[in-house]
Amino acid sequence: MSAVDRALLQAIEQAASPDQLVADRRDFHRYAESGWTEFRTSSLIARRLERLGFAVLAGRSVCAADARMGVPPASVLDAHLLRAIDQGGDPEYVEAARGGLTGVVASLDGGAGPTVALRFDIDALDLVESDAPTHRPARDGFASVNVGACHACGHDGHAAVGLGVAEVLMKLRRLLRGSVKLIFQPAEEGVRGARAIVEAGHLEDVDILIGHHLITGWGLGEIAPSMNGYAATRKFDVTFEGAAAHAGGSPEEGRNALLAAATAAIGLHALPRHRSGFTRVNVGRLEAGTGRNIVPGRALLVAEVRGESSALCDSMYERAMRVVESSASMYGCSAAVRSMGEAGTASCDPILAKRVKAVGEPWGDVTFESADRMGGSEDFTEMMRRVQSHGGLATNIGVGADFHGVLRSTLDRSSVLGGHTPTFDFDERAMALAVRLLASLTIDAMRAPGCSAEP
Amino acid sequence: MSAVDRALLQAIEQAASPDQLVADRRDFHRYAESGWTEFRTSSLIARRLERLGFAVLAGRSVCAADARMGVPPASVLDAHLLRAIDQGGDPEYVEAARGGLTGVVASLDGGAGPTVALRFDIDALDLVESDAPTHRPARDGFASVNVGACHACGHDGHAAVGLGVAEVLMKLRRLLRGSVKLIFQPAEEGVRGARAIVEAGHLEDVDILIGHHLITGWGLGEIAPSMNGYAATRKFDVTFEGAAAHAGGSPEEGRNALLAAATAAIGLHALPRHRSGFTRVNVGRLEAGTGRNIVPGRALLVAEVRGESSALCDSMYERAMRVVESSASMYGCSAAVRSMGEAGTASCDPILAKRVKAVGEPWGDVTFESADRMGGSEDFTEMMRRVQSHGGLATNIGVGADFHGVLRSTLDRSSVLGGHTPTFDFDERAMALAVRLLASLTIDAMRAPGCSAEP
Amino acid sequence: MSAVDRALLQAIEQAASPDQLVADRRDFHRYAESGWTEFRTSSLIARRLERLGFAVLAGRSVCAADARMGVPPASVLDAHLLRAIDQGGDPEYVEAARGGLTGVVASLDGGAGPTVALRFDIDALDLVESDAPTHRPARDGFASVNVGACHACGHDGHAAVGLGVAEVLMKLRRLLRGSVKLIFQPAEEGVRGARAIVEAGHLEDVDILIGHHLITGWGLGEIAPSMNGYAATRKFDVTFEGAAAHAGGSPEEGRNALLAAATAAIGLHALPRHRSGFTRVNVGRLEAGTGRNIVPGRALLVAEVRGESSALCDSMYERAMRVVESSASMYGCSAAVRSMGEAGTASCDPILAKRVKAVGEPWGDVTFESADRMGGSEDFTEMMRRVQSHGGLATNIGVGADFHGVLRSTLDRSSVLGGHTPTFDFDERAMALAVRLLASLTIDAMRAPGCSAEP
Amino acid sequence: MSAVDRALLQAIEQAASPDQLVADRRDFHRYAESGWTEFRTSSLIARRLERLGFAVLAGRSVCAADARMGVPPASVLDAHLLRAIDQGGDPEYVEAARGGLTGVVASLDGGAGPTVALRFDIDALDLVESDAPTHRPARDGFASVNVGACHACGHDGHAAVGLGVAEVLMKLRRLLRGSVKLIFQPAEEGVRGARAIVEAGHLEDVDILIGHHLITGWGLGEIAPSMNGYAATRKFDVTFEGAAAHAGGSPEEGRNALLAAATAAIGLHALPRHRSGFTRVNVGRLEAGTGRNIVPGRALLVAEVRGESSALCDSMYERAMRVVESSASMYGCSAAVRSMGEAGTASCDPILAKRVKAVGEPWGDVTFESADRMGGSEDFTEMMRRVQSHGGLATNIGVGADFHGVLRSTLDRSSVLGGHTPTFDFDERAMALAVRLLASLTIDAMRAPGCSAEP
Repeated sequence: MSAVDRALLQAIEQAASPDQLVADRRDFHRYAESGWTEFRTSSLIARRLERLGFAVLAGRSVCAADARMGVPPASVLDAHLLRAIDQGGDPEYVEAARGGLTGVVASLDGGAGPTVALRFDIDALDLVESDAPTHRPARDGFASVNVGACHACGHDGHAAVGLGVAEVLMKLRRLLRGSVKLIFQPAEEGVRGARAIVEAGHLEDVDILIGHHLITGWGLGEIAPSMNGYAATRKFDVTFEGAAAHAGGSPEEGRNALLAAATAAIGLHALPRHRSGFTRVNVGRLEAGTGRNIVPGRALLVAEVRGESSALCDSMYERAMRVVESSASMYGCSAAVRSMGEAGTASCDPILAKRVKAVGEPWGDVTFESADRMGGSEDFTEMMRRVQSHGGLATNIGVGADFHGVLRSTLDRSSVLGGHTPTFDFDERAMALAVRLLASLTIDAMRAPGCSAEP
Repeated sequence: MSAVDRALLQAIEQAASPDQLVADRRDFHRYAESGWTEFRTSSLIARRLERLGFAVLAGRSVCAADARMGVPPASVLDAHLLRAIDQGGDPEYVEAARGGLTGVVASLDGGAGPTVALRFDIDALDLVESDAPTHRPARDGFASVNVGACHACGHDGHAAVGLGVAEVLMKLRRLLRGSVKLIFQPAEEGVRGARAIVEAGHLEDVDILIGHHLITGWGLGEIAPSMNGYAATRKFDVTFEGAAAHAGGSPEEGRNALLAAATAAIGLHALPRHRSGFTRVNVGRLEAGTGRNIVPGRALLVAEVRGESSALCDSMYERAMRVVESSASMYGCSAAVRSMGEAGTASCDPILAKRVKAVGEPWGDVTFESADRMGGSEDFTEMMRRVQSHGGLATNIGVGADFHGVLRSTLDRSSVLGGHTPTFDFDERAMALAVRLLASLTIDAMRAPGCSAEP
Repeated sequence: MSAVDRALLQAIEQAASPDQLVADRRDFHRYAESGWTEFRTSSLIARRLERLGFAVLAGRSVCAADARMGVPPASVLDAHLLRAIDQGGDPEYVEAARGGLTGVVASLDGGAGPTVALRFDIDALDLVESDAPTHRPARDGFASVNVGACHACGHDGHAAVGLGVAEVLMKLRRLLRGSVKLIFQPAEEGVRGARAIVEAGHLEDVDILIGHHLITGWGLGEIAPSMNGYAATRKFDVTFEGAAAHAGGSPEEGRNALLAAATAAIGLHALPRHRSGFTRVNVGRLEAGTGRNIVPGRALLVAEVRGESSALCDSMYERAMRVVESSASMYGCSAAVRSMGEAGTASCDPILAKRVKAVGEPWGDVTFESADRMGGSEDFTEMMRRVQSHGGLATNIGVGADFHGVLRSTLDRSSVLGGHTPTFDFDERAMALAVRLLASLTIDAMRAPGCSAEP
Repeated sequence: MSAVDRALLQAIEQAASPDQLVADRRDFHRYAESGWTEFRTSSLIARRLERLGFAVLAGRSVCAADARMGVPPASVLDAHLLRAIDQGGDPEYVEAARGGLTGVVASLDGGAGPTVALRFDIDALDLVESDAPTHRPARDGFASVNVGACHACGHDGHAAVGLGVAEVLMKLRRLLRGSVKLIFQPAEEGVRGARAIVEAGHLEDVDILIGHHLITGWGLGEIAPSMNGYAATRKFDVTFEGAAAHAGGSPEEGRNALLAAATAAIGLHALPRHRSGFTRVNVGRLEAGTGRNIVPGRALLVAEVRGESSALCDSMYERAMRVVESSASMYGCSAAVRSMGEAGTASCDPILAKRVKAVGEPWGDVTFESADRMGGSEDFTEMMRRVQSHGGLATNIGVGADFHGVLRSTLDRSSVLGGHTPTFDFDERAMALAVRLLASLTIDAMRAPGCSAEP
């Protein structure tokens, strides 16, 4: 490691306090908010960045409202907005996000040079957190108090890392050779939010885009400079409308939405496999009918398709629509389809991945992993595609944060993105490493030949 | 019984020879011909009636060609036409029936008075007859020599009865007070033929229409003056056309006609029950696909619906079409539907049923049965409806012909129309009784007040 | 009408106050309680009957606890018990019914003679009542305050009639020639309660059993002396247990309970029709799965079968169980079936129906209807069967109570048992007529030759 | 090319006559015989090899009779045996193969050294060959005269190449440093035959195993030294037995085998995808039912599963069996499953693939292709696995033989194994190249370090 590097490293470590990272993470964890209801989370981030000196966008300017997918009903948004204020959200920023306009974009002008954007997703999952005494958040008192919302994918850590990176970069401001943009994205779960940020234009001037994800399948110090192979996915809800009728007295008057949905569910799972790569289909929920003796007149089906490529995913979606419409018409029903999330595939730029290695290798405490078949979906790809489409570079970095030793042996590294389970937890020390890596990479990328955007 | 009646009865019994009836029936049985291939049967009937002195229509004039349903392919028709000549058919009349124009209509002008039509169906079933030594036709050498065609519903008897009635009425010609029309109908099985005879106009001038069916569920001497409750039915074939593809190499290129047909079969059976009465649906055959590793590009589905009323049947048919079309479109296939048979419901006229009783009661050797829930289908209803639509009267008479004593205890009288089994047989003595009844009724109906058509 | 009859009629009309009937009905309506939670309703009935002088059984003695079907979870029972007390229930009797032991049986010993039992069902439906100003209960302030419970089938009226009959019979006590038993049955909706009363033995000593139902399809003054043709039915819930799995990452690890339930739903509807009579099947609800990207590990299916006879119903049930078990095993799931209600068929005794006519005809203000194909199900049949099994007589009387003139033209009389709709209401004057009829019939039946139980 | 090589090449080319290859191929093509009926083909091969001086095994010794899969019924075998004699088969060898004991194994002892086995598959497909004048075999008079059997996958060429190799190796016998075994395998189509040869023990002493396949997707001179990625597969037929019944009269008596099969077909296609690799499932044929108005009592389903690995394939098969059994039991039917073919996966040994390159590269007229994702199935893998299991080496070579220039652009190289279409044809010049390559490789492999089996 050169003297310059050593100095930088030291500066970073002084700027970022591990204790603060842990405190932030546990605060976000305790007041977990799921997609489009990150009122408290967004408001506190916005206020903090503002105080640090960033130019902060919140509310209406962050997401293109119409491009948001899977937004909860107004009644839920309103209730959670009140909760956010109750739980210490910043009233002004909470109010700005009314209607589910969550998320924050903050900028720091570092003079001439490329614009480097870093993305941090901030939403929790719709999950009831474990209260088992063996679950650290429960034991140590920072388990979610919001029943049904739980940070089980590490986005609480991502948000804390984002604040840490902000603090470091502000302190090392003089080292920048370009601008920094910090994107705190709502609603990554269900791949519902990235597109709305893209549509709002925030990626248009970005030359280098960096994302990261804490990975509980890897140990502390294990880093993937790029994570590829995310599946393209389309999420959708279908409402079948038929006609209810008395099942005993006049069954012939019914148009059976339950059977339409059941037929669709089976038909969707029977979609043919594809030569060109893997595909997935899942009907995650089916809810139909009211009373036992009523022919069900209405049914809801919650589904998704995936594909190894965007083309495969689109082909699955097209066939799925045919199945849905035909199932409805078979039972004389109508089918209304609503898009609830969407993400394509994208590939990390090797040149940027190499910079990750170049930055981290001298430190001596990290090793590098290959992660080319991630399997799940991640809407960061939507941002990557936009940046790459105008000649920019992008990568998504995996940061090992395995907490439970036991996980190592039982989980398949290539498929674990996080737990999505009620007892999910991670090694909090990984956050400091993530801050160090992202801050260093930001500064490095602004200088590295081939990274600055001169297409 | 009055002296007049006694004289009539005697005259009838002299005119009709039981031995001739048995000989005719066994001849038709031995050379069984199924629907639209009754070349030999029709030709022999036509020739015989012509010789008796009837005005005979055969070939093109009998059925409206386009109204025939479920006609076999030309290759089958041609092969069976040759077979008919080989087996002693009348060459001239066989030739007239080329292309499946089978059936005979014969008239006898009896002067002023109503026109009484009698209908006799003449086709066999597509069935391989039993060769068990316990099966009388096999034991006594008159089992069908035409493999795959078998008189297992008694139409051989009906045809013989028709010839017997023709002989009697010709001999008693001077007693007639009106005209007689004998209709030997092809393709009753599958309810494919009656409509074509109706469409050819043969029922337009009919005032009184009489049908009969030998019933193996009832003993000799048991007579139903009217048989009601035949279900309306529509028969149809569906051909699903998709696209074949290599199942291993490019499954996504297939449009799976087998799955479309399977989905349709299940969906058809899941059609809702109906408040207003019973309904039926059956997919009797499904044939799809070629090779094991080929996505099936073509499927055939052979089906029918029934209903307690024509309205119920039509409602089932309409829903069935929706299922068929939706199943096809679910798998990207097309569905071509071909009508293969159709019969509505009809009710016998009580006034005519009363004449049956009035005629038979004095004989002392018959008892009368009620038969109001026959359940099966019978395309004689098509003729009845046409006659009734212009104010005429119609009835369909059941004539007990139970052969196997054992049947009595195991079969439900209200549902048995005949056996449709490889060992079907009947009590041949019932034919003479049928001749006596039909001839007497014809003469009676021409005179009975209320029967002659003065609407 | 004889002078005696006239005197009786007058006495009855003096004893029963129409205003009291309306007040009682509206009170029950306002505090509607659905099956097994009729804590307040039962307690007020019990207290009133006790005060009138009846020997009252409540709580544990009314229903055989294990024979109750479709009992809500303990948490629901407990919450509604507290609500009942809040809403003015009699604390002592409410407490006696803890755990869903609702219902009341009251007796009056009238000396030597037959025991006449009258049955009144008292439960509401799980339905949110309309608050439209055009809905009389809403307009006049007696709509249900218990959201999700609504008297939409007239059982509030039945309960009020029962109290009216009790009052009359107590006042006319000296006219009795036998004993009276008043059965206030819980949980008729879903046919869940009658069997538990039968199993507790209350029908063992009954010679004459009389039920009644207000019928909104008939006008005031229209009476059906007997209502026959109720379908036998079996209600059941199925829980499919499979294994959840990540749909993207490891779909092959799932055992898909949603597809098992969907397959069962379709298979149930595809059960074959039956020669011997009508059958019905309905899957009224299907709920499966949690998250969009999770292979559903659990599903609930709420269903029922019906048959024109108990044998048909049992045959459908048996086949349904096969479909359920096979669907589960197809997807590697288990299926747990829970019986949620059951009622057989029963026929009213014509001799008793004749007494209804004999009693009412002289009044001049009633007409008699035939009601032989009711179609729906009614668990009063369970009580009838028990009484008839030891030689007793039973009938179920329909009492016209049409409120909305419009209903007459749009509803099929033979299929309407009540509305089961949020705007259900009835002509309250029918209650006084019902009291008059039931009280008169009770007194009459004790004297009528052929009615007293001398088997 | 070294002088030695050049000499060898020259010797080979003198030994093998291209005209003979073409004549042999066209003879086999004209008298195409499908799996287990290769009576004529086997007999002529056996006789020829015998005359060349090979030690020939035919009939009972070639295949383990019980390990044969998908053997046609005895009536078919017998008819085709007679046909073989008619068409000039060698009577003695035809007779030896009675009962479907086709195939030939021939050995040549070349002294000390490894045993090199070459495998040639010889069966045709069940397909009607095109008679279009644009189809060369039709135009030039060598199209199949056996209607329904057609060499549409090039095995006629493989058989001819086998004879050519035999001739060359016999002539160059002195150059051998080990033994040669020529395996002419029956019934490769449907992967039915290899296992029976393995089970008969013919691979036990083999050190080096070489297969080849003419590939119409590649041009003349294009060679794949190894073809990997064949899918594991299991083929099976299912017979569902239920109970037939009259669909109109007594539908409830039926146990519907058609619906059981339809449910199974859909359920099979709905088997979940798998994380670990690609899977396939296909129901290639479904045949059920007899008459339109009969509840179908019997159904046949012809299916297969595949997997990227043998484990995946077995897992699919296990689940498929569950679907089949559950579908049967859902409709009260039984299901009998019969194994009709099976092949696992195997990988070519790189060391052997390198020898292919080493041998061919100096010739100058060949180029080498990579073929690592073949997709289809090939039961040569069964032989490879056995040889590799005891430390031997194996490869399967692709030999470009594209005939129709147009194919190049429309077919995906990685998925085409042959056409399986009625107009399949190939470039016959490829056969001489194949002979040259296989003969050279045999001689080379006996000498090459690392190839001789010294594990």
